Formats: sequence, structure tokens, C-alpha cells
Amino acid sequence: MRGSSCTPRTRETIPVTQIRRTLFEPAALPADVRDGLRSLCAQARGDILTMTTLAGCGHPGGSMSSLEILSLLYSQARLDPSRPTASGRDRVIVSNGHISPGVYSVLGRLGFLDLEEALVSFRLAGSEFEGHVERSVPGLEITTGNLGQGLSAACGFAVADRSLGLDNHVWVVTGDGEQQKGQNCEARRFAARYGLDNLTVIVDCNGLQISGSTSSIMPVDLEREYLSSGWRVEKVDEGHDLEALYRAIRGGSGPGPTLVIARTVMGKGVSFMENVADYHGKALTPDQLASALGELGLENRLDELRERRRSWKPMPPADGRGSQPPSQILEHYGEARIYPADHKGDDRGAFGSALLDLARSNPGREPLVFDCDLAGSVRTSDFGERYPGLFFQCGVQEHHAVSAAGAASLTGRVVFFAGFGVFAIDETFNQHRLNDINMTGLKVVATHCGLDVGEDGKTHHCINYLGLLRTLRHYSTIVPADPNQTDRVIRHIATHPGNYFVAMGRSKTRVIQDEEGQPFYGESYRFSYGQADLLRTGRDVAVLTMGLMCQRAIEVRDALSERGISAAVFNISCPLSIGTELVDRLRDFRLVATYEDHDRGSGLGASLSVAMAEAVTGVPLARYGVREYGFSGPPEELYRMQGLLPEQVARALAERLKAL
Amino acid sequence: MRGSSCTPRTRETIPVTQIRRTLFEPAALPADVRDGLRSLCAQARGDILTMTTLAGCGHPGGSMSSLEILSLLYSQARLDPSRPTASGRDRVIVSNGHISPGVYSVLGRLGFLDLEEALVSFRLAGSEFEGHVERSVPGLEITTGNLGQGLSAACGFAVADRSLGLDNHVWVVTGDGEQQKGQNCEARRFAARYGLDNLTVIVDCNGLQISGSTSSIMPVDLEREYLSSGWRVEKVDEGHDLEALYRAIRGGSGPGPTLVIARTVMGKGVSFMENVADYHGKALTPDQLASALGELGLENRLDELRERRRSWKPMPPADGRGSQPPSQILEHYGEARIYPADHKGDDRGAFGSALLDLARSNPGREPLVFDCDLAGSVRTSDFGERYPGLFFQCGVQEHHAVSAAGAASLTGRVVFFAGFGVFAIDETFNQHRLNDINMTGLKVVATHCGLDVGEDGKTHHCINYLGLLRTLRHYSTIVPADPNQTDRVIRHIATHPGNYFVAMGRSKTRVIQDEEGQPFYGESYRFSYGQADLLRTGRDVAVLTMGLMCQRAIEVRDALSERGISAAVFNISCPLSIGTELVDRLRDFRLVATYEDHDRGSGLGASLSVAMAEAVTGVPLARYGVREYGFSGPPEELYRMQGLLPEQVARALAERLKAL
Repeated sequence: MRGSSCTPRTRETIPVTQIRRTLFEPAALPADVRDGLRSLCAQARGDILTMTTLAGCGHPGGSMSSLEILSLLYSQARLDPSRPTASGRDRVIVSNGHISPGVYSVLGRLGFLDLEEALVSFRLAGSEFEGHVERSVPGLEITTGNLGQGLSAACGFAVADRSLGLDNHVWVVTGDGEQQKGQNCEARRFAARYGLDNLTVIVDCNGLQISGSTSSIMPVDLEREYLSSGWRVEKVDEGHDLEALYRAIRGGSGPGPTLVIARTVMGKGVSFMENVADYHGKALTPDQLASALGELGLENRLDELRERRRSWKPMPPADGRGSQPPSQILEHYGEARIYPADHKGDDRGAFGSALLDLARSNPGREPLVFDCDLAGSVRTSDFGERYPGLFFQCGVQEHHAVSAAGAASLTGRVVFFAGFGVFAIDETFNQHRLNDINMTGLKVVATHCGLDVGEDGKTHHCINYLGLLRTLRHYSTIVPADPNQTDRVIRHIATHPGNYFVAMGRSKTRVIQDEEGQPFYGESYRFSYGQADLLRTGRDVAVLTMGLMCQRAIEVRDALSERGISAAVFNISCPLSIGTELVDRLRDFRLVATYEDHDRGSGLGASLSVAMAEAVTGVPLARYGVREYGFSGPPEELYRMQGLLPEQVARALAERLKAL
Repeated sequence: MRGSSCTPRTRETIPVTQIRRTLFEPAALPADVRDGLRSLCAQARGDILTMTTLAGCGHPGGSMSSLEILSLLYSQARLDPSRPTASGRDRVIVSNGHISPGVYSVLGRLGFLDLEEALVSFRLAGSEFEGHVERSVPGLEITTGNLGQGLSAACGFAVADRSLGLDNHVWVVTGDGEQQKGQNCEARRFAARYGLDNLTVIVDCNGLQISGSTSSIMPVDLEREYLSSGWRVEKVDEGHDLEALYRAIRGGSGPGPTLVIARTVMGKGVSFMENVADYHGKALTPDQLASALGELGLENRLDELRERRRSWKPMPPADGRGSQPPSQILEHYGEARIYPADHKGDDRGAFGSALLDLARSNPGREPLVFDCDLAGSVRTSDFGERYPGLFFQCGVQEHHAVSAAGAASLTGRVVFFAGFGVFAIDETFNQHRLNDINMTGLKVVATHCGLDVGEDGKTHHCINYLGLLRTLRHYSTIVPADPNQTDRVIRHIATHPGNYFVAMGRSKTRVIQDEEGQPFYGESYRFSYGQADLLRTGRDVAVLTMGLMCQRAIEVRDALSERGISAAVFNISCPLSIGTELVDRLRDFRLVATYEDHDRGSGLGASLSVAMAEAVTGVPLARYGVREYGFSGPPEELYRMQGLLPEQVARALAERLKAL
């Protein structure tokens, strides 16, 4: 997907600024370091302006206001430009991802990356130097861009690193406008609750956002808000004074997380840009650039660089993960639990048991589990009691939980997040989308999906998860049929990299049996992603189903059989990955039906429609699923009201067949 | 969808408690009112317990802790049980929707609804007395259930009512656990910024949430947090003392919004339930109920009610909107703006102009507009300058904005919310889902959709809006082709009830012309929802497209024509409403293609796949759309990288035709 900065830097012409790395140990900023940083910042201001003018767009204002903060952190934190992903490193999270020109300039001047390449290719399609920072760039931990998620990600890194026994520090750079997002409030409470001494947030308080001053747009009393959540707060009146910044950042280390409020100036360093909100997201014209560079006493390389930009070509695509390794996996699958044919239990219980087994089977590498006040219902409470140091209670703060858990999965840990479907995906969709973009390795277990939730009613019926997850690229979705398949699925996702979303209902269900009455997902079964399972053979109709509806689909088959119709039943446990092989098998049937406890317009039936249209099968397809919001009531009644009871579906199918 | 409580209450057997309504005018709670309320609460405790035990589920704990709060508000606020939707009424928002048993008991005892019906049918499929409160129930303003959205909704009601010149008050009941949600922080800042003197929030501080004490799960210092946002805070140490509660609630009226922190006891009134977190969401057993009712000195009607519950049947379905009227519309469409054939402009500009026209054409009934610091980009800033009192700046607080705007649309106002696609739907999906459930009438205009966004990169490319909106039931989605169609679409949605989502790109585009070079969407055009427009006739291939790709689709046609292939071009501006008539017309072509600046797996191509599978057309379908996250770069380059330039699509289509 992208050019790699790890290729030889043959075109590098800009010398690295050598600055002594103090790890914030001296009480005051040493003079040599200060002088080096001043020089770096002076140069970087020119880089920022040149880069954005060349691109004709970008965000120079905040880049310049945050420059001293960025350069102090990247030069003084425990980081090694030649080994930017070394274990035990400090992490710098840039939450306001639009200040990318500032970040690239500092990282380039410090030798993390090829600044010349950044200058030339900023915002060109195929360059890794994108408009918002990407984690494939050395020195960056996470791709940001949608505001307000960075602090949560930082919390995830901080708790995961601590669980690994590391004593590193997590630094967050954030804008002040961005602090309006409520997710920050969730994150700061979490940080205080977990006593994150290893977390420092520096707010680039330039007082401006797109539409004007932050105080006129939406005032936030940062100091009082963070104090009220139990943080330590340091203030720097002159956020461009390197020595004052250093003292505040250093003074901030102590019990609990620390906020540093640094008063800065948008567009700092260029007279006509200072404190002008318009420069939040507007590049200078070439004439303005010439004037600004003159004021800064810097060489104007615009023409030369523009030539090079015109002929710039992206590197050949890499593997899509930039320089970052894939997410962690557990080594040991453990011993599968076989639930006997007469077992009746819920899938969430099987999840909880498998989770505990996996933890026991992988001593020292147990997963982390994030919860939002639902552990008892989603069956992670046993894990929480057994492994309190690896269990993270986020309260009713789902946005934070998903971002934090996603970031935690980028460390050396396997990470689970479990919650009700409506919170695990509907409420947190965009947090998952950012995880998706970051190619995190989060294992989401969503219980309480479908009308099966019953009496809690429509606000709690998650009937659309497939519709949402279909639009993500790096989440694999699985809907297990019974406790046996659930057990194997949970072991599978813990031992495979990448994001997974496992959806299950709330109710108890019988174990799916084969035609001999033995557990279908028995001793010999191993889950394989994308595989369709033929639960029952048949000739006339193929019924494709998933999750708790598998049991009911077998009842549909029985009811059809009484009418002299032979139906096959397939469990499609990976409804977003319909293979061509399956579609080919369906050509043999007179009618194909999908049967799901999910919105029929965006679920399994929709997946199959697309696959069948693609293959031009010409076989008619009948889709049975949720048509409207369900009431609050027993699931059986809710199914009846939407024509989803087995007898109703069998009757409808028989009629449809007759009409063919 | 639901039984109506407006039918004659023939089965009503429980007498209404007559309580004098003081509108909080006396300095202290009059003794007669106090006594009446005490008696009501004593009875209502029994109702709550009976109702939940009958259902075998529900939330008794919080219902009992909030009982005095609920009864004071519903009995003393400006409300009329016989005219629950009267204009100018106070509004009571129950944000913690799970305390429905408490709400129904109080409303029933006060004569808003048939309590007997609530007791008997609570949580039965088809009853309006659902597990979480529904706005179809008299006395309720909004359906809640997913925590943390109620305060935002209240803000929306408060500003909309104020804009109508009403001097009513908006009261919010909320749980303490729920206050953890970050959206509350966004809402409270908004309330302070807009000086909502007419807003009072009462927190039922029972100190418990599902997993245990709020202070152990996720501490929130409510007093300091709300004070830091500029609220007035009143505290009541004994939240079951009606006189103290009255004083605090009354004392709370003054400049700015007020928070009343009421310390209460979960399960209040029954010794073995008090302060037990388990009773958050667990009903008593029949034996426990008998014991509790004995303690409360109340009659046990369980057996009698259970009989009636067994034979209860829902009323015939009503129109799905309960007792609430449909959302408001503007009366005057105004005069359409015709952009000439040689005009080049962006759709967002056409939106901004139409919005201003509509406001001017409907004096005194101008729409309200909600913004999240993007007014300049989404072109609502002119409206904001012209109508500052009707323009609501929410800052970078999208969750709040969508909930508030949705609620505001349930008043006498037409309401617009405009933002970038990724914030207008991806970040706020679940807020829209709650709007959808509430059948609000919000007009969402999402600019910056598609790869057309360009250099801001993948975090800002909204390429999945159709996938998300497809799962909602009461949002109509429109993707206009050019400034002319945009103009007509905006006028249409303002003059029609219900939720609309209008998606557009960022770039300027040419006006779509007919074959004579005149504006296709000219003088005679009026938008009709669901209509497909044949932009160009053709024989071999039908290219279905939408939005900015319409212009490019015409170029595809030209490129095919050079190869001797005749292509028709259809603008499908309502891609989630593919009609059977259109599908029938497609049978005449050898090949159908969809062409979109949207994820190909969940967009127009997916819609058409489903419609074609449904109709079993057998015509091959080729889908051209976004396959992977785009880079940061000029749109033209991004299209090229995904094979979406007209020449690339024409080439692919020609090859596909050859292979048929």
C-alpha cells in the first residue's frame, strides 16, 4: 500500500541536527540542548511552510504553535531514531494528527526520517507523508486525524506497556480545540483511575480552532476539568520557551497522570500568521512563503523542490503495514472444550470459559481484557477476578474503551474487548474505523446481538452489525452457531493476528448436532475463517443461516420435510466472506434462502445477494430477516411478529417454491 | 407499530392521585402536596416491584431511587396529564431510560397513562410499556436506553423551545453511572455556552452501577466537573426527602443551567434491596415480592395480574409514531436557483445558498442550524451570520450535536445539521440510530464524502455512508449530482417531514447537461424521492452512478462510444431506494455497471445487487467503486490508483462486454 521510509535514503541532503538526549534527567534544560533545539525549531518553521505551500494545502498554524513541544519530546524522550520501534521506548502520541508538517519536520531534523522526501512528497498520493500522521512513519505510534481519540490510545499503550513490566513513558500532544470532544473526558478519568504515572499530556493551547477562538466556539476550562478528574496540572505561560516547557514537562512526573497546558501562538514565528485562525488549515501562497522565509532568515527552496515534486513517484507498494509489525497472537490454543450433545448453554458463557482457558494456557502472555461495566453479562468477570491486573474497567465510556483497547493491541499483548452489540459496534463505529485504519489487532466479542436480546427493546437490539462491519477492511467477523463453535472461534482469534469481531446472542441454545446426534462442532473440528458448514444435506432448497438461527434453521428443514421438500442447511459463520465455492454449490438448488436474526437489508442476505449477482447464478434468493425495529418482549414473540419462527419461514418457503 | 394509550381506558382500575400542581412557585413544598406525593411514592414502590416481578426482568433498583425525583417533576412541572403534548409544556427527559418501571408508575398514578395496562403489559411484545422508555408514552419526550444521550436531547429541546419564544423549562433525570459517558461533558458545555436558564438536570446519585459502586468503577466528581463548565450546582443529601428535593430544584432556577445532585438509595424502601447493585437490573422473585410488599404495607396483586398478563393482547398496530406528531416542515419551497450550463461550483455552495433562500422564504419559521466548527467548509456560515439566534455552534462535539439537533427537530422547528461525512455519520452513527428510533426530522447535510476529499486522507474520506445509513429505517438518503439538483434536494427535504441525509463531495463540478447542452436539472425539474434519472440514453451497457461521479460517468459513456459501445447513464440519487421499475428497465441491457466514489461492497453496487437478486434479472453486474482506503493526495490521483478514472472504467467495461 505504501512507500517505505526504510529504503536507503539516497536523496537525503538535509543534515540531522545532533541534540543530546537527556531523558529529562537534568533539573533544567542544558544550554547545549536548548541551543540545538532553538536551531532545529528555526529551521523546522521553514520546513513546515515550504511543505504546505508546495502541497497547496495542509495545516501550518498548529504545526508552528506545537513546534517547541514536539521538538522537546522527540529529542529528549527515550527514543532512538535508528530504532524507532525498539521495545521499551517512550511513546509519543500525536492526537491532533493534522499538525503533520510540524511532526515530519521535527522527526526529519532529528534523523527519524528523510526530511527531503517529506518536503517533496507531502500529501502526494502514495507518499507516507500524508495530511494526517500515519503510524507507518518512524516516530509515530498511531494514525490519527479524527480528533479526540489520541488520549484514549495513549491510555491503552500506557496500561499495556505497564502490564509488560516496562517503565517507559507515554507522551501525548494534543490541540486545545480537540479537548472539546467528550472522549477526552472519558480517557482522563480512566488514566486517573489506573494511576497512570507514566502518562503526560501536553496541550498546545494556541487558543484558536477553525471557526475562531476556542473560548468563543466552545469554552473548556482545562485546568479545572483535569484537576477535577484527579490529574496533576502544570502550566506554561510561554509555550515557545524551551526552558519553561522543559521544567513543566519534567515537573509533571509524579504520582498520577499529568497535564501540561502550554500557551502558544498559532503560526508562531511569522508576523502575519501569528494568532490568525485562518492559518489553521491554509497554506501560504508562494509570495507569502518568500516573505515568511525572509522574515525567518531561511533559504527559499520552493522552485527546486517543486521540480522534484513534479517528478516524484511513490515507492512500490509494501505489505500495507508500513514499518510496524502485525499484532500479537497467543502461542497456545489450549485444549478445546467439547460441550456434549445434550448441553444447553449460552455462547457468551463459552466465550468466558475459553478466555480463561487461553489465559491459563499462556502464562506470562495472558490477554488483556477491557470492559464497560458489563463484565457479568458478557462473561469476562471470572477473568477479571483471576487476573485483576490485566482487566481494565472503563465504566460507561465505550468510545474510550475501543480506542484504548485498539492501541493496547499494538503492543506485545493480545487484547479483548467485550460488550453488548449496540455498544461494541453501533456506538463505537468510528473508533473501530480508526482501529481498522491502524490495523490494530483487537478481539471484539459482542454479546446481546439480534432480537434475541428480547425485553431490553429496540435501543438494545443490535440488528445491524454486519452492515457496519462490512464497510471496514481489516476486521474479520464471525457469528458462531453454538457453544462448541464459540469455543473454537475464541481460540482461533486469540491465536491469529488482526482485528476480529465475534457476534453472539444472549440466550441459551442447544448444541448443534450432526445427523447422528453427535456435536457437529466436536472433537475433530477446528475453525477455519471463511468456511461454510453444511449442517444438513438436502436437494430443493438451501437455507443459509448463522449464529443462534442455526438451530432454528434445522427446525425449518424439519417443517419443510413434512411438506415433502428437501432442504439443506448451511452455517455461514463468516457472513462477510462468502466464497465463490459456496456460491457455485448453490447453483444446484431451486431456491436459496437466507435466515438471520439481523436486518435483512444489510446482513447475510445482502452478502449473498452481492456474491450471487457477482457470479450471475440466476438462482432465486429469498431473504428472511429483521424488517423493522423490534419491541420489548420475549425473543420468541419478537420473531413471530416478524415472521421469523421456523414454521413461518417454512410456510413462506414452501409457497415461494410453489410459485417458481 | 404499537398499541396506543389514547384508546379509551376501559380497564383502568387504579385511581389517579390528585396532587396540586404548584409549578414550583411556592418557596417551600406545601404540606398537602408533600403528603400527596408521599402517598403516591409509597404506592408506586409497589407498582415498580410488581411490574418487574410480573415481567421477570427490568430495572427496579434505580426506579426506586429516582421515585421522589420523578414524582416531584411530573406533578409540579408545567404539564397537563390530559394534554401531554400541549405546546409550551415543560419537558421531562428521562435519560436513564431503564428506570421505566418508576416512570410508568408515577405517570400512571398522576393520570398520564393507564397504570393497570402498564402493570399488566410491561415488557410484553406489542405493549408501549417497553423496557426502556419510549416517547409514544404520554409524559415522555424522547426514547432513551443507550446511556448518555438524554442531556444532549434536552439541550436541543431547550434551544428550540427558546427559539420559538416559549418560556418553558426542560428537566432532565439522569443516573450517576451514566454521567461517565463523555457526551454529557459535551452537552453541559453547550448548555453553559448558550446560557440555558431553562434547563435543570437532576442526578439520581444512588452510587451504584451494574458492576458495583460508581466510585470503584469509574469515579466522576460531578460537582467539580459541572462547576468547571459554568453550571450552578445544588446538592441534596437526602434525595428521598421531598421537601429538600423541592428546595434544591426550585433554588436551581437562576442564570445558567443547574445541576441538582440528589443522594439516593438504590432499591429505596425495601430493606433487603437497599444499596444492593444487583437490583439495578434484576426483578424480585414472587416470594421476595411478597416479602417486600409486606414491608411496604401494600396489597399483593401478583396472581390476579399474572392471569391478565397471560391473556393480554396488543392493540392493532398504529402508524408507528405513537401519539407524537410528525416532524415539522417549512411551508415555502422558495424559488429554485437555476445554475446555468456553464456554471462550475460545488454542491456545498448550492446547499448554503438554498438554505439561506429557505430561511428568507419562511420568515418566522426559519430553520435551526447546528454546526461543529466547520461552518465555513460546509457553507452554513452565511446562515449563521444572518441568523445568529438560530445557529448553534457545538464545537468539536459531534455526538452532542447530532442528539441535540435530533431532539430539536421534534419541536416546531425544521432543523439542519451539516458536517463532514466522517463526523456526520461515522462518528455519530449511534446518535443517528437513536434519532431513527425516535423518528426525528433531522436534515443532515454531509459534505466531504468520498475520495473526492483528497489530501486530508483516509481518516477524512467518508466512503461508507451508504453502508451505515442502509441499516436505519427512518432516514432517507440522497446524493445529488450537481449544484442544480442539490438546490432542489435541499428545498425538498426542508419541505418534507422525517430524517434526511444528503451526501456530497468537496470539489467543484460542472453542471450536468442534457444532450442539448442545457442544465439537466433545469427550470422544470422538481426532486422526487426514489426517482432514477436517465442522463444519457444507450443500448449495450447501463451505467448507474450518483453524486460527483455523474459527470465522470458521462465521460465513461463518451469513451465507450469511441469503442463502438453504446452506454446509457442513470443518476441514482437515492441509492438506498432502488425501485423495481428501474430494475425492470435494466433487463434490456447486456451489462449493468455501477460507478461510485464509495466503498463498492456497501454502496450503490450493493444496493443494486440486492435489488437485482430480488428480481432475478440474470443480467451481469459490474461494480466499480472504492476498494481500499485512499491515500492523502489529489482526488484525480486517488481515483486513478483505484481504477476509477473514466478511461479506466471504460476500458474495464469494454473488456467485460467482450468476455460475455
